[in-house]
Amino acid sequence: MFTLGIDIGSTTSKCVLLKDGTHIVAQALVDAGIGTEGPEEAFQSILAQSGLSPEEITRKTATGYGRTRWQGADNEISELTAHALGCHFLIPEARTVIDIGGQDAKVISLDEKGRMSGFVMNDKCAAGTGRFLEVMAGILKLEVDQLGDLAAQSVQPVNISSTCTVFAESEVISQLANGADRADVVAGICQSVAGRVAALAKRAGVRQQVCMSGGVARNRGVREALSQALEVPVVWSPMAQMAGALGAALHAWQKCGKPT
Amino acid sequence: MFTLGIDIGSTTSKCVLLKDGTHIVAQALVDAGIGTEGPEEAFQSILAQSGLSPEEITRKTATGYGRTRWQGADNEISELTAHALGCHFLIPEARTVIDIGGQDAKVISLDEKGRMSGFVMNDKCAAGTGRFLEVMAGILKLEVDQLGDLAAQSVQPVNISSTCTVFAESEVISQLANGADRADVVAGICQSVAGRVAALAKRAGVRQQVCMSGGVARNRGVREALSQALEVPVVWSPMAQMAGALGAALHAWQKCGKPT
Ligand code: SF4
Repeated sequence: MFTLGIDIGSTTSKCVLLKDGTHIVAQALVDAGIGTEGPEEAFQSILAQSGLSPEEITRKTATGYGRTRWQGADNEISELTAHALGCHFLIPEARTVIDIGGQDAKVISLDEKGRMSGFVMNDKCAAGTGRFLEVMAGILKLEVDQLGDLAAQSVQPVNISSTCTVFAESEVISQLANGADRADVVAGICQSVAGRVAALAKRAGVRQQVCMSGGVARNRGVREALSQALEVPVVWSPMAQMAGALGAALHAWQKCGKPT
Repeated sequence: MFTLGIDIGSTTSKCVLLKDGTHIVAQALVDAGIGTEGPEEAFQSILAQSGLSPEEITRKTATGYGRTRWQGADNEISELTAHALGCHFLIPEARTVIDIGGQDAKVISLDEKGRMSGFVMNDKCAAGTGRFLEVMAGILKLEVDQLGDLAAQSVQPVNISSTCTVFAESEVISQLANGADRADVVAGICQSVAGRVAALAKRAGVRQQVCMSGGVARNRGVREALSQALEVPVVWSPMAQMAGALGAALHAWQKCGKPT
Protein backbone atom coordinates (compact mmCIF):
# COMPACT_ATOMS: atom_id res chain seq x y z
CA MET A 1 0.00 0.00 0.00
CA PHE A 2 1.28 3.47 -0.91
CA THR A 3 0.79 6.65 1.07
CA LEU A 4 2.04 10.12 0.23
CA GLY A 5 3.04 13.09 2.33
CA ILE A 6 3.47 16.60 0.98
CA ASP A 7 5.05 19.47 2.92
CA ILE A 8 4.23 22.86 1.41
CA GLY A 9 6.48 25.53 2.85
CA SER A 10 6.87 29.20 2.10
CA THR A 11 9.72 28.61 -0.34
CA THR A 12 9.84 24.88 -1.11
CA SER A 13 7.48 21.95 -1.69
CA LYS A 14 8.52 18.48 -0.59
CA CYS A 15 6.91 15.11 -1.32
CA VAL A 16 7.59 11.61 0.01
CA LEU A 17 6.01 8.38 -1.19
CA LEU A 18 5.95 5.56 1.35
CA LYS A 19 5.32 1.84 0.76
CA ASP A 20 3.62 -0.02 3.62
CA GLY A 21 4.60 2.70 6.09
CA THR A 22 8.19 1.50 6.11
CA HIS A 23 9.94 2.10 2.79
CA ILE A 24 10.61 5.42 1.14
CA VAL A 25 9.95 4.74 -2.53
CA ALA A 26 10.26 8.22 -3.99
CA GLN A 27 10.92 11.77 -2.88
CA ALA A 28 10.83 15.17 -4.54
CA LEU A 29 11.91 18.66 -3.58
CA VAL A 30 10.85 21.68 -5.61
CA ASP A 31 12.19 25.16 -4.94
CA ALA A 32 8.78 26.79 -5.03
CA GLY A 33 6.31 26.84 -2.19
CA ILE A 34 2.87 28.11 -1.33
CA GLY A 35 0.93 29.91 -4.02
CA THR A 36 2.90 28.41 -6.93
CA GLU A 37 2.84 25.27 -9.05
CA GLY A 38 5.49 23.87 -6.69
CA PRO A 39 3.24 21.40 -4.85
CA GLU A 40 1.76 19.95 -8.06
CA GLU A 41 5.21 19.72 -9.62
CA ALA A 42 6.53 17.80 -6.62
CA PHE A 43 3.53 15.46 -6.80
CA GLN A 44 3.97 14.84 -10.52
CA SER A 45 7.64 14.08 -9.95
CA ILE A 46 6.64 11.38 -7.44
CA LEU A 47 4.23 9.84 -9.96
CA ALA A 48 6.93 9.86 -12.63
CA GLN A 49 9.54 8.33 -10.32
CA SER A 50 7.25 5.59 -9.06
CA GLY A 51 5.26 4.92 -12.22
CA LEU A 52 2.09 4.99 -10.12
CA SER A 53 -1.18 6.61 -11.08
CA PRO A 54 -2.81 8.92 -8.48
CA GLU A 55 -5.46 6.27 -7.77
CA GLU A 56 -2.82 3.79 -6.70
CA ILE A 57 -1.88 6.01 -3.78
CA THR A 58 -4.23 5.09 -0.95
CA ARG A 59 -3.99 8.29 1.01
CA LYS A 60 -2.32 11.69 0.61
CA THR A 61 -1.68 13.93 3.62
CA ALA A 62 -0.51 17.53 3.45
CA THR A 63 1.41 19.55 6.01
CA GLY A 64 3.36 22.80 6.16
CA TYR A 65 2.51 26.46 6.06
CA GLY A 66 0.66 26.14 2.74
CA ARG A 67 -1.00 22.80 3.40
CA THR A 68 -4.54 24.02 2.70
CA ARG A 69 -3.59 25.31 -0.74
CA TRP A 70 -3.10 22.02 -2.56
CA GLN A 71 -6.32 20.36 -3.65
CA GLY A 72 -4.91 16.87 -4.01
CA ALA A 73 -4.69 15.99 -0.31
CA ASP A 74 -7.15 13.80 1.60
CA ASN A 75 -6.37 15.51 4.89
CA GLU A 76 -3.98 17.92 6.59
CA ILE A 77 -1.86 17.70 9.71
CA SER A 78 0.15 20.30 11.60
CA GLU A 79 3.84 20.74 10.94
CA LEU A 80 4.54 19.81 14.54
CA THR A 81 2.86 16.43 14.22
CA ALA A 82 4.52 15.84 10.87
CA HIS A 83 8.04 16.67 12.03
CA ALA A 84 7.62 14.59 15.19
CA LEU A 85 6.59 11.55 13.17
CA GLY A 86 9.20 12.08 10.48
CA CYS A 87 12.08 12.59 12.88
CA HIS A 88 11.13 9.59 14.97
CA PHE A 89 11.24 7.48 11.80
CA LEU A 90 14.62 8.85 10.72
CA ILE A 91 16.24 8.91 14.17
CA PRO A 92 14.30 6.73 16.65
CA GLU A 93 16.44 7.95 19.59
CA ALA A 94 15.46 11.58 18.99
CA ARG A 95 13.82 13.17 22.04
CA THR A 96 14.27 16.83 21.08
CA VAL A 97 13.63 17.95 17.52
CA ILE A 98 14.84 21.38 16.48
CA ASP A 99 13.29 22.57 13.27
CA ILE A 100 14.51 25.90 11.92
CA GLY A 101 12.12 26.81 9.14
CA GLY A 102 12.07 29.53 6.53
CA GLN A 103 10.25 31.90 8.85
CA ASP A 104 9.98 30.23 12.21
CA ALA A 105 11.77 27.91 14.59
CA LYS A 106 10.23 25.08 16.58
CA VAL A 107 11.50 22.81 19.29
CA ILE A 108 9.47 19.62 19.72
CA SER A 109 9.84 17.24 22.65
CA LEU A 110 9.20 13.56 21.85
CA ASP A 111 8.46 10.65 24.14
CA GLU A 112 9.94 7.16 23.68
CA LYS A 113 7.25 6.26 21.15
CA GLY A 114 7.93 9.33 19.07
CA ARG A 115 4.79 11.13 20.16
CA MET A 116 4.98 14.87 20.69
CA SER A 117 4.96 15.62 24.42
CA GLY A 118 5.45 19.39 24.13
CA PHE A 119 6.78 22.16 21.97
CA VAL A 120 7.97 25.75 21.95
CA MET A 121 7.99 27.90 18.88
CA ASN A 122 8.98 31.30 17.61
CA ASP A 123 7.06 32.58 14.63
CA LYS A 124 6.99 36.24 15.66
CA CYS A 125 10.61 37.30 15.29
CA ALA A 126 12.81 36.70 12.25
CA ALA A 127 15.90 36.34 14.45
CA GLY A 128 16.77 32.68 14.95
CA THR A 129 14.90 31.57 11.82
CA GLY A 130 15.83 30.77 8.24
CA ARG A 131 14.79 34.28 7.37
CA PHE A 132 17.72 35.67 9.34
CA LEU A 133 20.06 33.49 7.28
CA GLU A 134 18.37 34.62 4.06
CA VAL A 135 18.77 38.29 4.92
CA MET A 136 22.43 37.77 5.77
CA ALA A 137 23.10 35.65 2.68
CA GLY A 138 21.59 38.54 0.70
CA ILE A 139 24.12 41.00 2.15
CA LEU A 140 26.96 38.61 1.37
CA LYS A 141 25.56 37.88 -2.11
CA LEU A 142 25.58 34.17 -1.33
CA GLU A 143 22.99 31.41 -1.43
CA VAL A 144 21.75 30.31 1.99
CA ASP A 145 23.12 26.85 1.21
CA GLN A 146 26.65 28.22 0.88
CA LEU A 147 26.75 29.60 4.41
CA GLY A 148 27.51 26.32 6.19
CA ASP A 149 30.68 25.48 4.28
CA LEU A 150 31.96 29.02 4.49
CA ALA A 151 31.38 29.09 8.25
CA ALA A 152 33.49 25.94 8.56
CA GLN A 153 36.51 27.88 7.24
CA SER A 154 36.28 30.45 10.02
CA VAL A 155 39.21 30.81 12.40
CA GLN A 156 37.68 33.36 14.75
CA PRO A 157 33.94 33.92 14.41
CA VAL A 158 32.97 37.57 14.76
CA ASN A 159 30.59 38.44 17.56
CA ILE A 160 27.30 39.88 16.39
CA SER A 161 25.98 41.74 19.39
CA SER A 162 22.44 42.53 18.18
CA THR A 163 19.94 39.72 18.20
CA CYS A 164 17.50 41.68 16.01
CA THR A 165 17.80 40.82 12.32
CA VAL A 166 17.58 44.48 11.32
CA PHE A 167 20.25 45.69 13.73
CA ALA A 168 22.44 42.63 13.05
CA GLU A 169 22.21 43.44 9.34
CA SER A 170 23.78 46.85 10.00
CA GLU A 171 26.45 45.26 12.16
CA VAL A 172 27.36 42.76 9.46
CA ILE A 173 27.50 45.48 6.81
CA SER A 174 29.84 47.56 8.93
CA GLN A 175 32.00 44.56 9.84
CA LEU A 176 32.44 43.69 6.19
CA ALA A 177 33.19 47.34 5.43
CA ASN A 178 35.85 47.23 8.15
CA GLY A 179 37.49 44.30 6.39
CA ALA A 180 36.33 41.43 8.61
CA ASP A 181 36.96 37.99 7.12
CA ARG A 182 33.85 36.73 5.31
CA ALA A 183 34.12 33.23 6.80
CA ASP A 184 34.37 34.73 10.30
CA VAL A 185 31.33 36.89 9.64
CA VAL A 186 29.33 33.91 8.37
CA ALA A 187 30.36 31.87 11.40
CA GLY A 188 29.12 34.74 13.58
CA ILE A 189 25.83 34.70 11.69
CA CYS A 190 25.43 30.96 12.30
CA GLN A 191 26.22 31.47 15.99
CA SER A 192 23.60 34.17 16.22
CA VAL A 193 20.90 31.85 14.87
CA ALA A 194 22.12 29.00 17.06
CA GLY A 195 22.13 31.19 20.16
CA ARG A 196 18.57 32.27 19.61
CA VAL A 197 17.35 28.74 18.89
CA ALA A 198 19.29 27.32 21.84
CA ALA A 199 17.39 29.68 24.15
CA LEU A 200 14.15 28.35 22.67
CA ALA A 201 15.32 24.75 23.13
CA LYS A 202 16.21 25.40 26.75
CA ARG A 203 12.67 26.59 27.36
CA ALA A 204 11.34 23.35 25.88
CA GLY A 205 13.85 21.24 27.82
CA VAL A 206 16.82 19.61 26.10
CA ARG A 207 16.81 15.80 26.19
CA GLN A 208 19.16 13.70 24.09
CA GLN A 209 19.28 12.79 21.33
CA VAL A 210 18.85 16.28 19.99
CA CYS A 211 18.12 16.16 16.30
CA MET A 212 17.79 18.88 13.69
CA SER A 213 15.01 18.79 11.15
CA GLY A 214 14.13 21.01 8.21
CA GLY A 215 16.33 22.61 5.56
CA VAL A 216 18.61 24.55 7.89
CA ALA A 217 19.82 21.20 9.30
CA ARG A 218 22.05 20.95 6.22
CA ASN A 219 23.93 24.05 7.38
CA ARG A 220 26.77 22.63 9.40
CA GLY A 221 27.73 26.07 10.69
CA VAL A 222 24.40 26.32 12.48
CA ARG A 223 24.50 22.67 13.53
CA GLU A 224 27.91 22.97 15.13
CA ALA A 225 27.13 26.29 16.79
CA LEU A 226 23.92 24.77 18.16
CA SER A 227 25.78 21.80 19.54
CA GLN A 228 28.21 24.17 21.24
CA ALA A 229 25.46 26.37 22.64
CA LEU A 230 23.51 23.39 24.00
CA GLU A 231 26.62 21.45 25.07
CA VAL A 232 25.25 18.21 23.62
CA PRO A 233 25.74 16.54 20.25
CA VAL A 234 23.24 17.54 17.60
CA VAL A 235 22.46 14.72 15.20
CA TRP A 236 20.69 15.03 11.88
CA SER A 237 19.63 12.92 8.99
CA PRO A 238 20.61 13.79 5.42
CA MET A 239 16.86 13.45 4.84
CA ALA A 240 16.15 16.13 7.46
CA GLN A 241 14.62 18.51 4.94
CA MET A 242 12.08 15.81 4.00
CA ALA A 243 11.08 15.06 7.60
CA GLY A 244 7.79 16.96 7.41
CA ALA A 245 6.69 15.28 4.17
CA LEU A 246 7.81 11.91 5.52
CA GLY A 247 5.81 12.47 8.71
CA ALA A 248 2.74 13.32 6.66
CA ALA A 249 3.16 10.09 4.64
CA LEU A 250 3.50 8.13 7.91
CA HIS A 251 0.38 9.79 9.26
CA ALA A 252 -1.48 8.84 6.08
CA TRP A 253 -0.36 5.25 6.63
CA GLN A 254 -1.57 5.31 10.27
CA LYS A 255 -4.92 6.69 9.10
CA CYS A 256 -5.28 3.69 6.81
CA GLY A 257 -5.35 1.59 9.95
CA LYS A 258 -1.76 0.42 9.73
CA PRO A 259 0.14 2.01 12.61
CA THR A 260 3.90 2.10 12.19
CA MET B 1 25.29 83.35 31.06
CA PHE B 2 25.24 80.95 28.11
CA THR B 3 25.11 77.16 28.25
CA LEU B 4 25.03 74.73 25.37
CA GLY B 5 23.53 71.30 24.89
CA ILE B 6 24.45 68.95 22.08
CA ASP B 7 22.55 65.76 21.24
CA ILE B 8 24.57 63.43 19.01
CA GLY B 9 22.33 60.75 17.55
CA SER B 10 22.98 57.97 15.08
CA THR B 11 21.81 60.05 12.12
CA THR B 12 21.54 63.68 13.29
CA SER B 13 23.36 66.15 15.53
CA LYS B 14 21.37 68.81 17.39
CA CYS B 15 22.57 71.84 19.32
CA VAL B 16 20.75 74.33 21.55
CA LEU B 17 22.21 77.50 23.07
CA LEU B 18 20.48 78.73 26.20
CA LYS B 19 20.75 82.12 27.87
CA ASP B 20 20.36 82.15 31.66
CA GLY B 21 18.64 78.76 31.60
CA THR B 22 15.46 80.29 30.26
CA HIS B 23 15.87 81.60 26.72
CA ILE B 24 16.70 79.58 23.62
CA VAL B 25 19.09 81.84 21.73
CA ALA B 26 20.14 79.56 18.89
CA GLN B 27 19.54 76.04 17.65
CA ALA B 28 21.02 73.88 14.93
CA LEU B 29 20.16 70.54 13.39
CA VAL B 30 22.59 68.74 11.10
CA ASP B 31 21.66 65.59 9.20
CA ALA B 32 24.81 63.73 10.21
CA GLY B 33 25.37 62.01 13.51
CA ILE B 34 27.96 60.00 15.34
CA GLY B 35 31.29 59.43 13.63
CA THR B 36 30.96 62.40 11.26
CA GLU B 37 31.64 66.12 11.26
CA GLY B 38 27.98 66.61 12.18
CA PRO B 39 28.48 67.53 15.84
CA GLU B 40 31.18 70.10 15.06
CA GLU B 41 29.10 71.54 12.22
CA ALA B 42 26.11 71.97 14.54
CA PHE B 43 28.34 73.66 17.12
CA GLN B 44 29.87 76.03 14.55
CA SER B 45 26.39 76.94 13.36
CA ILE B 46 25.47 77.93 16.93
CA LEU B 47 28.57 80.13 17.16
CA ALA B 48 27.75 81.76 13.83
CA GLN B 49 24.10 82.36 14.79
CA SER B 50 24.93 83.83 18.19
CA GLY B 51 28.16 85.62 17.34
CA LEU B 52 29.69 84.11 20.48
CA SER B 53 33.19 82.69 20.79
CA PRO B 54 33.52 79.24 22.40
CA GLU B 55 34.94 80.83 25.56
CA GLU B 56 31.79 82.87 26.08
CA ILE B 57 29.78 79.66 26.58
CA THR B 58 30.13 78.78 30.26
CA ARG B 59 29.36 75.09 29.98
CA LYS B 60 28.71 72.57 27.21
CA THR B 61 26.93 69.29 27.93
CA ALA B 62 26.60 66.40 25.49
CA THR B 63 23.93 63.70 25.31
CA GLY B 64 22.76 61.10 22.83
CA TYR B 65 24.08 57.84 21.47
CA GLY B 66 27.33 59.44 20.29
CA ARG B 67 27.85 61.79 23.23
CA THR B 68 31.35 60.56 24.04
CA ARG B 69 32.58 61.21 20.51
CA TRP B 70 32.64 65.01 20.53
CA GLN B 71 35.66 66.50 22.25
CA GLY B 72 34.11 69.90 22.91
CA ALA B 73 31.83 68.94 25.80
CA ASP B 74 32.53 69.58 29.50
CA ASN B 75 30.42 66.64 30.57
CA GLU B 76 27.89 64.08 29.36
CA ILE B 77 24.44 63.10 30.52
CA SER B 78 22.16 60.21 29.53
CA GLU B 79 19.50 60.67 26.90
CA LEU B 80 16.86 59.86 29.48
CA THR B 81 17.92 62.71 31.76
CA ALA B 82 18.21 65.05 28.80
CA HIS B 83 14.79 64.29 27.36
CA ALA B 84 13.14 64.53 30.77
CA LEU B 85 14.61 67.99 31.34
CA GLY B 86 13.94 69.18 27.81
CA CYS B 87 10.35 68.00 27.71
CA HIS B 88 9.57 69.48 31.11
CA PHE B 89 10.84 72.83 29.82
CA LEU B 90 8.79 72.61 26.60
CA ILE B 91 5.63 71.16 28.15
CA PRO B 92 5.60 71.59 31.95
CA GLU B 93 2.45 69.45 32.32
CA ALA B 94 4.15 66.44 30.71
CA ARG B 95 4.14 63.37 32.97
CA THR B 96 4.85 60.74 30.33
CA VAL B 97 7.43 61.35 27.63
CA ILE B 98 7.50 59.03 24.64
CA ASP B 99 10.67 59.30 22.64
CA ILE B 100 10.88 57.22 19.48
CA GLY B 101 14.47 57.41 18.36
CA GLY B 102 16.31 56.26 15.27
CA GLN B 103 16.93 52.83 16.74
CA ASP B 104 15.15 52.66 20.04
CA ALA B 105 12.06 53.81 21.87
CA LYS B 106 11.85 55.12 25.42
CA VAL B 107 9.01 55.99 27.71
CA ILE B 108 9.98 58.26 30.59
CA SER B 109 7.77 59.00 33.59
CA LEU B 110 8.15 62.47 35.09
CA ASP B 111 7.11 63.81 38.46
CA GLU B 112 5.60 67.27 39.01
CA LYS B 113 9.03 68.87 39.07
CA GLY B 114 10.03 67.28 35.80
CA ARG B 115 12.35 64.75 37.39
CA MET B 116 12.49 61.29 35.90
CA SER B 117 10.66 58.87 38.18
CA GLY B 118 10.99 55.80 35.96
CA PHE B 119 11.43 54.60 32.42
CA VAL B 120 10.99 51.66 30.07
CA MET B 121 12.92 51.26 26.89
CA ASN B 122 13.28 49.03 23.85
CA ASP B 123 16.65 49.04 22.19
CA LYS B 124 16.73 45.37 21.21
CA CYS B 125 14.05 45.14 18.53
CA ALA B 126 13.74 47.41 15.51
CA ALA B 127 9.93 47.15 15.58
CA GLY B 128 8.39 50.21 17.20
CA THR B 129 11.44 52.39 16.52
CA GLY B 130 12.44 54.90 13.89
CA ARG B 131 14.31 52.12 12.17
CA PHE B 132 11.03 50.41 11.34
CA LEU B 133 9.84 53.62 9.68
CA GLU B 134 13.13 53.91 7.77
CA VAL B 135 12.89 50.37 6.43
CA MET B 136 9.30 50.96 5.33
CA ALA B 137 10.07 54.35 3.80
CA GLY B 138 12.80 52.56 1.85
CA ILE B 139 10.29 50.12 0.36
CA LEU B 140 7.97 52.97 -0.58
CA LYS B 141 10.88 55.03 -1.93
CA LEU B 142 9.90 57.89 0.37
CA GLU B 143 11.70 59.96 2.96
CA VAL B 144 10.76 59.11 6.55
CA ASP B 145 9.52 62.69 6.91
CA GLN B 146 6.95 62.18 4.16
CA LEU B 147 5.19 59.32 5.93
CA GLY B 148 3.12 61.44 8.34
CA ASP B 149 1.37 63.53 5.71
CA LEU B 150 0.71 60.53 3.50
CA ALA B 151 -0.80 58.60 6.41
CA ALA B 152 -3.18 61.51 7.00
CA GLN B 153 -4.71 60.88 3.56
CA SER B 154 -5.61 57.32 4.42
CA VAL B 155 -9.28 56.29 4.37
CA GLN B 156 -8.85 52.76 5.64
CA PRO B 157 -5.47 51.87 7.12
CA VAL B 158 -4.31 48.38 6.17
CA ASN B 159 -3.67 45.98 8.99
CA ILE B 160 -0.09 44.80 9.24
CA SER B 161 -0.31 41.56 11.16
CA SER B 162 3.41 40.95 11.82
CA THR B 163 5.09 43.02 14.48
CA CYS B 164 8.55 42.00 13.31
CA THR B 165 10.15 44.53 10.97
CA VAL B 166 11.40 41.80 8.65
CA PHE B 167 8.08 40.00 8.35
CA ALA B 168 6.14 43.28 8.15
CA GLU B 169 8.41 44.30 5.28
CA SER B 170 7.26 41.26 3.29
CA GLU B 171 3.64 42.02 4.16
CA VAL B 172 3.96 45.59 2.96
CA ILE B 173 5.65 44.51 -0.27
CA SER B 174 2.87 42.04 -1.02
CA GLN B 175 0.13 44.53 -0.08
CA LEU B 176 1.60 47.07 -2.47
CA ALA B 177 1.91 44.37 -5.15
CA ASN B 178 -1.77 43.58 -4.59
CA GLY B 179 -2.65 47.19 -5.31
CA ALA B 180 -3.29 48.47 -1.78
CA ASP B 181 -3.52 52.25 -1.54
CA ARG B 182 -0.16 53.74 -0.56
CA ALA B 183 -1.69 56.11 1.99
CA ASP B 184 -3.53 53.18 3.61
CA VAL B 185 -0.32 51.18 3.74
CA VAL B 186 1.59 54.08 5.32
CA ALA B 187 -1.19 54.57 7.87
CA GLY B 188 -0.89 50.87 8.70
CA ILE B 189 2.86 51.32 9.13
CA CYS B 190 2.31 54.21 11.55
CA GLN B 191 -0.24 52.15 13.48
CA SER B 192 2.24 49.31 13.76
CA VAL B 193 4.87 51.57 15.34
CA ALA B 194 2.26 53.17 17.59
CA GLY B 195 0.93 49.81 18.74
CA ARG B 196 4.35 48.62 19.72
CA VAL B 197 5.23 51.85 21.52
CA ALA B 198 1.83 51.97 23.25
CA ALA B 199 2.55 48.54 24.75
CA LEU B 200 5.84 49.94 26.07
CA ALA B 201 4.08 53.03 27.47
CA LYS B 202 1.51 50.88 29.25
CA ARG B 203 4.33 49.04 30.99
CA ALA B 204 5.74 52.36 32.17
CA GLY B 205 2.30 53.66 33.19
CA VAL B 206 0.47 56.29 31.19
CA ARG B 207 -0.14 59.55 33.04
CA GLN B 208 -1.31 62.71 31.31
CA GLN B 209 -0.08 64.82 29.73
CA VAL B 210 1.51 62.38 27.37
CA CYS B 211 4.06 64.11 25.23
CA MET B 212 6.13 62.98 22.28
CA SER B 213 9.78 63.85 22.03
CA GLY B 214 12.41 63.21 19.37
CA GLY B 215 12.23 63.35 15.60
CA VAL B 216 9.37 60.89 15.10
CA ALA B 217 7.11 63.31 17.03
CA ARG B 218 6.86 65.30 13.79
CA ASN B 219 5.13 62.34 12.14
CA ARG B 220 1.47 63.02 12.72
CA GLY B 221 0.50 59.56 11.50
CA VAL B 222 2.38 58.00 14.41
CA ARG B 223 1.19 60.71 16.82
CA GLU B 224 -2.47 60.17 16.00
CA ALA B 225 -2.19 56.39 16.01
CA LEU B 226 -0.45 56.60 19.39
CA SER B 227 -3.20 58.79 20.78
CA GLN B 228 -5.78 56.27 19.57
CA ALA B 229 -3.89 53.30 20.97
CA LEU B 230 -3.43 54.98 24.37
CA GLU B 231 -6.88 56.58 24.38
CA VAL B 232 -5.45 59.88 25.61
CA PRO B 233 -4.34 63.01 23.78
CA VAL B 234 -0.69 63.03 22.76
CA VAL B 235 0.80 66.50 22.81
CA TRP B 236 4.07 67.56 21.27
CA SER B 237 6.16 70.62 20.80
CA PRO B 238 7.37 71.69 17.37
CA MET B 239 10.74 71.73 19.11
CA ALA B 240 10.38 68.07 20.08
CA GLN B 241 13.35 67.00 17.99
CA MET B 242 15.54 69.42 19.96
CA ALA B 243 14.35 68.22 23.38
CA GLY B 244 17.49 66.19 24.10
CA ALA B 245 19.85 69.04 23.21
CA LEU B 246 17.70 71.47 25.14
CA GLY B 247 17.75 69.19 28.17
CA ALA B 248 21.53 69.00 27.98
CA ALA B 249 21.75 72.80 27.87
CA LEU B 250 19.43 73.01 30.89
CA HIS B 251 21.58 70.48 32.72
CA ALA B 252 24.67 72.55 31.94
CA TRP B 253 22.88 75.56 33.43
CA GLN B 254 21.98 73.62 36.59
CA LYS B 255 25.61 72.51 36.90
CA CYS B 256 26.66 76.14 36.89
CA GLY B 257 24.74 76.44 40.13
CA LYS B 258 21.70 78.10 38.61
CA PRO B 259 18.85 75.58 38.84
CA THR B 260 15.97 76.25 36.48
S1 SF4 C 1 14.00 41.76 17.15
FE1 SF4 C 1 14.22 42.33 14.98
S2 SF4 C 1 13.90 40.41 13.96
FE2 SF4 C 1 13.01 40.19 15.99
S3 SF4 C 1 10.88 40.90 15.94
FE3 SF4 C 1 12.09 42.65 16.40
S4 SF4 C 1 12.45 43.56 14.40
FE4 SF4 C 1 11.93 41.45 14.03
